[in-house]
Amino acid sequence: MTTKLVLVRHGQSVWNKENRFTGWKDVDLTEQGREEARQAGVLLQEAGFEFDMAYTSVLKRAIRTLWTILDNMDQMWIPVIRDYRLNERHYGALQGLNKAETAEKYGDEQVLIWRRSYDTPPPKMDRDDERYAGRLRVYKDLEEERIPLSESLKDTVARFLPYYQAEIEPQVRAGKQVLICAHGNSLRALVKHLSGISDEDIVKLNIPTGIPMVYELDDDLKPIRNYYLGDEEAAAKAAEAVANQTKG
Amino acid sequence: MTTKLVLVRHGQSVWNKENRFTGWKDVDLTEQGREEARQAGVLLQEAGFEFDMAYTSVLKRAIRTLWTILDNMDQMWIPVIRDYRLNERHYGALQGLNKAETAEKYGDEQVLIWRRSYDTPPPKMDRDDERYAGRLRVYKDLEEERIPLSESLKDTVARFLPYYQAEIEPQVRAGKQVLICAHGNSLRALVKHLSGISDEDIVKLNIPTGIPMVYELDDDLKPIRNYYLGDEEAAAKAAEAVANQTKG
Repeated sequence: MTTKLVLVRHGQSVWNKENRFTGWKDVDLTEQGREEARQAGVLLQEAGFEFDMAYTSVLKRAIRTLWTILDNMDQMWIPVIRDYRLNERHYGALQGLNKAETAEKYGDEQVLIWRRSYDTPPPKMDRDDERYAGRLRVYKDLEEERIPLSESLKDTVARFLPYYQAEIEPQVRAGKQVLICAHGNSLRALVKHLSGISDEDIVKLNIPTGIPMVYELDDDLKPIRNYYLGDEEAAAKAAEAVANQTKG
Repeated sequence: MTTKLVLVRHGQSVWNKENRFTGWKDVDLTEQGREEARQAGVLLQEAGFEFDMAYTSVLKRAIRTLWTILDNMDQMWIPVIRDYRLNERHYGALQGLNKAETAEKYGDEQVLIWRRSYDTPPPKMDRDDERYAGRLRVYKDLEEERIPLSESLKDTVARFLPYYQAEIEPQVRAGKQVLICAHGNSLRALVKHLSGISDEDIVKLNIPTGIPMVYELDDDLKPIRNYYLGDEEAAAKAAEAVANQTKG
């Protein structure tokens, strides 16, 4: 039996557009981001996907992307599970800073390490920082040690993957068609796991916004093949745009 | 401890506007209905409600109303549970028919019985009717006997109330602030239960669309008081508009 698992990275957010480190900051989609989400819904609808359930983060750019997709597919009724473990990688003290300005200040090389090293986290945010996520009601029931002060991609993998294995995998294994609507780095964590990508290579992989990525999985949930829906060229171009963001 | 439970009936739907019996037909909101939902969100936001979770039906007019409210309150992250047991009363063979035309055909009195009798269901729909809900993917995992062919309000109470008591009540009892976004008759079922309204009186109660109804409950989940948010006069007027719908 082949099961399909679909991953969508949220459409362009206000801080994507402003070229700022976003992390756990709950910024909304831009108009372009909403349009990307609509296109994703249309592509999935045209390809005949019938989802049984969907997972997303607790951040509105991912939730709105999911809502827009479900709306365009006329599948608003499917169960949706939101969980903070699908959140974007936490960008620590860099959250909110402009990527180009940060590069000017710390040097391209340092920023590249923060952005593209697998296991070096950016500088930590303080708990008394007004940006600290623990101040928000959405995280109020979480133990303090679960609220990151900064994360490397490795930390994001360690946060998301156990959740995927405990909560999402059993659904996929039971034959459910699952849609995951999340973020650049939580999806990198999943792609790394599914496709067995090395620590070195995963940091170079750019997942384009709003383009559905389909995994066809066998009974052991090993990928038979994976591909972007729609125009492959557009997907490649979108991924490149993401990679070029430090060049402000 | 006082807990607040909030009920919202979805905004105007396309078939509300066309004055047709809707039941389980999955019609969308009109532009007015979307605006009503926005207003409900603004009222709840201004009143400072902080929801912990929300329940809705599997029908898009209720889901979209809920989405719009959560969006306007910046509370898109709260868990949302969709369940068919919150669906509107099933209108049987009348589904899709115009209320005024049906009154002309069967007589005002007969239609009033179907609309306002507590325990007389409208004529049944056949299982081979193209409108039969069992054809839809959303209900595919339900046992046949759970898919109604027609319902009286009493039947809707029997469908929704056990769900409320098993699933929603424990959350309210645990102190969670719960939002229920549903339909005229599933909400009647709940109001009947909470306020102890008789079979005769509940059929006369009209819940206006898009106006949040707040129940303040004591530790035994008995209502201390209940009221509509916003303009009481507007609520009364909206309720009357609903009552007048057979007069096409």
